[in-house]
Amino acid sequence: MSAAPATALPPGSSHEALLVLNAGSSSLKFSVYQVGAPEGPDAKRKLKLLVSGVLEELGHAARFHVKDSQGQMLDELAWPEPAPAPGPGPLGHSGAIDFLTQWLREHNGGGMRLIGVGHRVVHGGVRYANPVLLGPEVLGELQALSPLAPLHQPHNLLPIRLIEQRLPGLPQVACFDTAFHRSAPEVSQAFALPAKLSQKGLRRYGFHGLSYEYIARALPSFDAHAAAGKTVVMHLGNGASMCALQAGRSIASSMGFTAVDGLMMGTRCGNLDPGLVLYLMDELKMDARAIERLLYKESGLLGVSGISSDMRVLSESAEPRAQEAIDLFVYRITRELGSLAAALGGLDALVFTAGIGEHSAKIREAVCKQAAWLGVELDSVANESGGPLISRLGSRCAAWVIPTNEELMIASHTLDLLQQPQEFE
Amino acid sequence: MSAAPATALPPGSSHEALLVLNAGSSSLKFSVYQVGAPEGPDAKRKLKLLVSGVLEELGHAARFHVKDSQGQMLDELAWPEPAPAPGPGPLGHSGAIDFLTQWLREHNGGGMRLIGVGHRVVHGGVRYANPVLLGPEVLGELQALSPLAPLHQPHNLLPIRLIEQRLPGLPQVACFDTAFHRSAPEVSQAFALPAKLSQKGLRRYGFHGLSYEYIARALPSFDAHAAAGKTVVMHLGNGASMCALQAGRSIASSMGFTAVDGLMMGTRCGNLDPGLVLYLMDELKMDARAIERLLYKESGLLGVSGISSDMRVLSESAEPRAQEAIDLFVYRITRELGSLAAALGGLDALVFTAGIGEHSAKIREAVCKQAAWLGVELDSVANESGGPLISRLGSRCAAWVIPTNEELMIASHTLDLLQQPQEFE
Repeated sequence: MSAAPATALPPGSSHEALLVLNAGSSSLKFSVYQVGAPEGPDAKRKLKLLVSGVLEELGHAARFHVKDSQGQMLDELAWPEPAPAPGPGPLGHSGAIDFLTQWLREHNGGGMRLIGVGHRVVHGGVRYANPVLLGPEVLGELQALSPLAPLHQPHNLLPIRLIEQRLPGLPQVACFDTAFHRSAPEVSQAFALPAKLSQKGLRRYGFHGLSYEYIARALPSFDAHAAAGKTVVMHLGNGASMCALQAGRSIASSMGFTAVDGLMMGTRCGNLDPGLVLYLMDELKMDARAIERLLYKESGLLGVSGISSDMRVLSESAEPRAQEAIDLFVYRITRELGSLAAALGGLDALVFTAGIGEHSAKIREAVCKQAAWLGVELDSVANESGGPLISRLGSRCAAWVIPTNEELMIASHTLDLLQQPQEFE
Repeated sequence: MSAAPATALPPGSSHEALLVLNAGSSSLKFSVYQVGAPEGPDAKRKLKLLVSGVLEELGHAARFHVKDSQGQMLDELAWPEPAPAPGPGPLGHSGAIDFLTQWLREHNGGGMRLIGVGHRVVHGGVRYANPVLLGPEVLGELQALSPLAPLHQPHNLLPIRLIEQRLPGLPQVACFDTAFHRSAPEVSQAFALPAKLSQKGLRRYGFHGLSYEYIARALPSFDAHAAAGKTVVMHLGNGASMCALQAGRSIASSMGFTAVDGLMMGTRCGNLDPGLVLYLMDELKMDARAIERLLYKESGLLGVSGISSDMRVLSESAEPRAQEAIDLFVYRITRELGSLAAALGGLDALVFTAGIGEHSAKIREAVCKQAAWLGVELDSVANESGGPLISRLGSRCAAWVIPTNEELMIASHTLDLLQQPQEFE
């Protein structure tokens, strides 16, 4: 292990802290927030980021790093490629939780007391329109939703069980990527499928809800007019979607039943004719797993370019196919923007967020130019410097860059639930 | 058989005529056009509808009717439900072609000479951006496209072979539902799939092209400004799609690889998360045929309402589920209208056409109200009386009702090709 300071977490005698976990198939992202005391009878308690980091390549040659709130590296570690069995296996999710809790104890400085854990859980189904305190019954219900998100939900839930075993009694909260969209009108959540299937939960859930909720909460301090009106938020990361906000509430999303629909993404195809899936079965003789691999892992920017799923790589490539992939990415955003503006009946503002949205001035410029018909006038200089306002003064539709913060949203929800003891089971 | 006049077709000594066929899985629609002589050296030859009709329920208890150009019934016939085998089987496509050619001969009055047959063929693939004179080679290529439209293409092609056997040497022309969209930019035809699959023909073809082409040709006489500008045409029939016209050329369509994508239809689901198809396979254990039946036959207006696929029935129903289905139908049009307006970068006019578009003032009103943000101001009185102009004077975006005529488009293309002998093989 590197020569990290022994007290990466600040010393103190009565700090309460929250752990936020975001578990994927081969990674575990974490953040620790210090919970400040309220400063008056009606004041909210403050959340302050202490550290954040990731354990990645779990199950293979795992790596760990952790940074402080300023982005300074505090500690790094790499596990060797595991030897062929017999012998110690690779570090998996279980070992990662053990390692993380141990690391937090060792670097605590003695003063931090963990009061709860908040988890990002992709699917809350029809029922969970809000975060929920976890108990055996809720966990069972969330497990039952796994078929709705088979590639994500089981990974999200595993750390909940592991922490319940390691730190029994510690309150845990699930925050859902779907919950924020449950406010949308029924008509925007429906597929034109037989009613009996819609009632079984085959509907448009929408995802990235924690990101949209964060933006909806942050927007009033940037643009009070848009916050009270019609805004489309573009969460453009490796996963990408868009959300129509009417007065801060989701009324429509580009994503549907799963996280593969809507926009083109790093490796996901986005919007696709369902009849094409039948063709893959009938003519190309592909089974469900092969189709899943194609649509989730081999399509999107990677599939079209044949080069990379990473917009940074494509933006710097001179290959025509890289430009083709970028053009299609922008075109699909353009079409979806029109569709969501129609759901809103007009548009007061665009918000760019997440990796590509926050960092690619080139993509923002291309999207804004295609949105000129909606009244967007780009301020190129402001766009190059990252905003936050990247439209000209007087632009009929404003354009903003606002960094998202899903982890803070999870910490905030978790704290809210811990402070409502009447909701404990 | 009824007491139809012996010379339903007009008598004369030198009339040339074209037969137009539109064959489905259990029906054969037909029209006969008289080809007038050109009246000057540069004048185009005129096409005049003589009769149109249908043979339907083929393979079951077949029925036949034919009307003149004013819609007056000329002849009707119903075949009895076939007895169980052995015995004569039901009237199928082959028998229908025999019956039709015989009927035309008997009711000809002696003067009409068939100079060609024009066929509606759903799929022309990537290659056929225009109608084509049929020969063995072309027919083979069209047959090879059947996997792209397995429910339609084989039925479209069968009458071509039957007529070649019955009336050898008679020129036949294929007119494609996909051809009109081949002018669209590549980016609007692409899915975000790996390049090797896109190159295999997995792209957005778009359909109802003959209808859109007819509207594009008719539009200048209604609205020269829109015809030179940005128009969205809504072909709302039992099948339904929308097309963005830029100066009369298709630049985008709501339909994709197959005719099941895009808008909600009578029994088709339209836009659907491809991940949902995986769920149907994995969790509901449905195979390709069961999924195909669900998405093509059991969804759409029928599936959502549980009542009917017919908008007329739903419009008159007091059942809440009928209204739900109508609301979803209108909502999906609204979203797609925004998406296509984005492809155009604005909107000068809407055009309603096909069964629902031409006849449902209620649906037109609902769509126009949702399109107010695009500058559409409905003239309710004009809408109730069927237009053609149903927006107010001064409306920033015009709205029109223009009856489509795919059969005339086929007859026109067929005549054009017959007059270009250099293109015969």
